[in-house]
Amino acid sequence: MDNFLATSLPIIQSPMAGVQNSTLTIAVSSAGGLGSLPCALLSIEELQIELNVLAQNNNRPFNANFFCHQPPKINPEREAKWRLELKPFFTELGMDIGNIPTEPNHQPFNHQMADVLEVYKPPVISFHFGLPSADLVKRVKSWGSTIISSATTVAEAQWLEANGADAIIAQGLEAGGHRGMFLSEDLTTQIGTFSLLPQIIKKVRIPVIAAGGISDAVSVSAAISLGASAVQVGTAYLLCTETDTSQIHRAAIKSDASHHTAITNLFSGRPARSIVNRVMTEIGPINQNTPEFPLALTAIRALKKQTEIAGIGDFSSLWCGQNATGCREISASEMTRSLATKL
Amino acid sequence: MDNFLATSLPIIQSPMAGVQNSTLTIAVSSAGGLGSLPCALLSIEELQIELNVLAQNNNRPFNANFFCHQPPKINPEREAKWRLELKPFFTELGMDIGNIPTEPNHQPFNHQMADVLEVYKPPVISFHFGLPSADLVKRVKSWGSTIISSATTVAEAQWLEANGADAIIAQGLEAGGHRGMFLSEDLTTQIGTFSLLPQIIKKVRIPVIAAGGISDAVSVSAAISLGASAVQVGTAYLLCTETDTSQIHRAAIKSDASHHTAITNLFSGRPARSIVNRVMTEIGPINQNTPEFPLALTAIRALKKQTEIAGIGDFSSLWCGQNATGCREISASEMTRSLATKL
Repeated sequence: MDNFLATSLPIIQSPMAGVQNSTLTIAVSSAGGLGSLPCALLSIEELQIELNVLAQNNNRPFNANFFCHQPPKINPEREAKWRLELKPFFTELGMDIGNIPTEPNHQPFNHQMADVLEVYKPPVISFHFGLPSADLVKRVKSWGSTIISSATTVAEAQWLEANGADAIIAQGLEAGGHRGMFLSEDLTTQIGTFSLLPQIIKKVRIPVIAAGGISDAVSVSAAISLGASAVQVGTAYLLCTETDTSQIHRAAIKSDASHHTAITNLFSGRPARSIVNRVMTEIGPINQNTPEFPLALTAIRALKKQTEIAGIGDFSSLWCGQNATGCREISASEMTRSLATKL
Repeated sequence: MDNFLATSLPIIQSPMAGVQNSTLTIAVSSAGGLGSLPCALLSIEELQIELNVLAQNNNRPFNANFFCHQPPKINPEREAKWRLELKPFFTELGMDIGNIPTEPNHQPFNHQMADVLEVYKPPVISFHFGLPSADLVKRVKSWGSTIISSATTVAEAQWLEANGADAIIAQGLEAGGHRGMFLSEDLTTQIGTFSLLPQIIKKVRIPVIAAGGISDAVSVSAAISLGASAVQVGTAYLLCTETDTSQIHRAAIKSDASHHTAITNLFSGRPARSIVNRVMTEIGPINQNTPEFPLALTAIRALKKQTEIAGIGDFSSLWCGQNATGCREISASEMTRSLATKL
């Protein structure tokens, strides 16, 4: 137990829903980092299976990650406007947008999930989009799990500390995937890693984990020298052997396309950083008509499914941070060790 | 001569047009940093006076900074739309927008300026918005000045290297003031310091200077450890004794308002980072009708002038980076030395 994470290395692998399962978690934890299991898209049954796999194959600390967004209300007017926006793409692909149901999915963290977790008691539980209700925070803490969550502003960091987080991820705006922002929807509040990290460190007393743009041993070391207690790295793992990153996603990361990412709300209804692709270019990365998270997932996922069959990523969420230069097609264990070589 | 800048410290004070003159330049250079003189807003006569002051009072290396934007064409339709946008503010203040002339101002770097420079031969000349024409680059180099310019993307860094820059400022999007962007107008191309710096270092052979979010000795040291040959620091100097930062600007920097900056094109027509104020909130930080740089300066400057009399910064460009925590009301010499204490 060398740090507050009880791992030998101060390196957390970012939970990346949609591109990984417990195989990646195990590979990272076995190398001394903190492997993460993204649980936000799992059913209760899948969650149980994955935690069981970890219990059988991993005796090192790991992290289970959940979303804790406010469940959305279906807004038929907004949904209609959004479908009007997407209709030309459906028409082009010979698909009927009327056949796509509007349905809520992806529950935020709840007691049913906690019932499963309680059996396995993950050493670390991380949340995105704030924290769950006070009773859930208390319940998770009661069995000894360390709670971490992402802050994208100083105000969010202070809120998380006041509401029970044991450590804070300072998520700089370079980071790939969903912004953890939860106190404001204004994207101009989002701050680069180099500015955000020191400001949060000055304002909270709990450990701060740096995220966003950290891609190799040099940047891991620089983040630690800026005062981070640990780092969280996502993008660099995207090509690792133990991920499920799709061929389309892999090809985009390896190409010059990865030089241009943007924060977009098209794929889920919440701002997230993706490699710029056709749909982001044609209707703009941020659209005011996008249904509330996660309702927006449904319609665009139908377009994604249809086009990916032909090997086209025009409607795919190509999550990626602003620095993909650290991505390598190696094992995640080797990646973890290589990130730590300048510590 | 300890580095490519011929200064004892690898610290450049950002040229900050509007808030400083040669007094700041001298204070920074005398402490071993590279003081900068922002020349973009100076007349030929003022340029000569300032360079003369430096020649009399400073025997250390310094930097003279110029803009090299494309001179704008007046677009009456766009100007009319912009004035319609601002009209409610003029009405509220009892001012007549019809009395504000539309006139080009702030020439890009030209041979007339070079005639003045040639007498003084500043050791370093920096440009913003690309580089001047090849004959001007050649002329400046002929008398031995080192040329540096800002890149906000890898592509811009490669362009600058190919077109005669001797060093490149990697301007992360945390930086205050004008974005140096010149190959694209798309703000989603802008990258955080932590991601931009290592990517540029990998792609060019000339020295790279880190800028954006660097505010204290720890972040200076972290930027150097990321591979920067030097750093450029602006915001941290804004409260220093030798600046002309207005009381309104100073008060904003010292208040919680400085926690929220945004990139805005309202004040000049080009994207620049300012503390969010009333005009940015009410019409949005980015407006499609804003006249081309620097034509947009005229109308909003009239509003600024009128409201600043009453001590109000609602229409003032409150340039500031995303990390103002390093600002201190000390001399710029002391600031320069304090930035270097962890090197």
